[in-house]
Amino acid sequence: MEKISFRSASADDCGKILFFIRELASYEKMSDEVVATEELLREWLFDKQIAEVLFVCEYGREAGFALFFHNYSTFLGRAGIYLEDLFVLPEYRGKGYGKAVLKKLAEIAVERGCGRLEWSCLDWNRPSIDFYLSLGAVPLEDWTVYRITGDTLKKLAE
Amino acid sequence: MEKISFRSASADDCGKILFFIRELASYEKMSDEVVATEELLREWLFDKQIAEVLFVCEYGREAGFALFFHNYSTFLGRAGIYLEDLFVLPEYRGKGYGKAVLKKLAEIAVERGCGRLEWSCLDWNRPSIDFYLSLGAVPLEDWTVYRITGDTLKKLAE
Repeated sequence: MEKISFRSASADDCGKILFFIRELASYEKMSDEVVATEELLREWLFDKQIAEVLFVCEYGREAGFALFFHNYSTFLGRAGIYLEDLFVLPEYRGKGYGKAVLKKLAEIAVERGCGRLEWSCLDWNRPSIDFYLSLGAVPLEDWTVYRITGDTLKKLAE
Repeated sequence: MEKISFRSASADDCGKILFFIRELASYEKMSDEVVATEELLREWLFDKQIAEVLFVCEYGREAGFALFFHNYSTFLGRAGIYLEDLFVLPEYRGKGYGKAVLKKLAEIAVERGCGRLEWSCLDWNRPSIDFYLSLGAVPLEDWTVYRITGDTLKKLAE
């Protein structure tokens, strides 16, 4: 068995995916924002196929996960890959799993003819930022994301 | 005929979509970054269906366009709508078409059970930022997007 391997998640993995989402939220100090359930993951990831989940494994055991979907660049005219979540369990850190996932996603992007690989990072997360810069990633410093959610979204829709 | 109406783009609209993409790029001072072609738009938007395009029309004439796709929030467990491009032609500005598009997208988001509507804005674009804040949008100021593209993407994939 290879030390590092990848496995695409299936609908049977919703419990495992939720575990990783909660671990990541705890790391980002945002646990109270997690309202996802296994049922919601099943509906949106596996019935509607809005996003894909990849596990990175050490000797077959899930060490981390990546959730990604296609975005689209009108300037390039092509899809990109947007990495929404990347998380490696604390006991597996510093062993190259994060980099292995980004390499794997770059491979998938090139295979599918996508023009970009993108993700967001919290500005206080200096270790991750240094790691991303070392891979040649460019920060889009002139842009800010705006969000409408919850009741504001419903009100705007009326 | 209603003054304001919406029309979903079809594969026959690729020329019109490319026209709007180029107008937007010119406004953003990024014209040299547009490498999209009608063929690429046809492939990725209408064959692979990676994103959707909506025209906002004044008495049936296209006054602006919006290109959007589904993103996914692991914390909410649901898809969101990400508005990649919103552009209203200069001669139609100040008449409420931008707001009409955002309201329409909020409606689509609520109909489809999505949790969020999001987009990015250049930090120097103060008129747009004030408009977004007036709608109740929240800027995600602690986050920065990182991007790997071109040769750096290919090198990482090797």
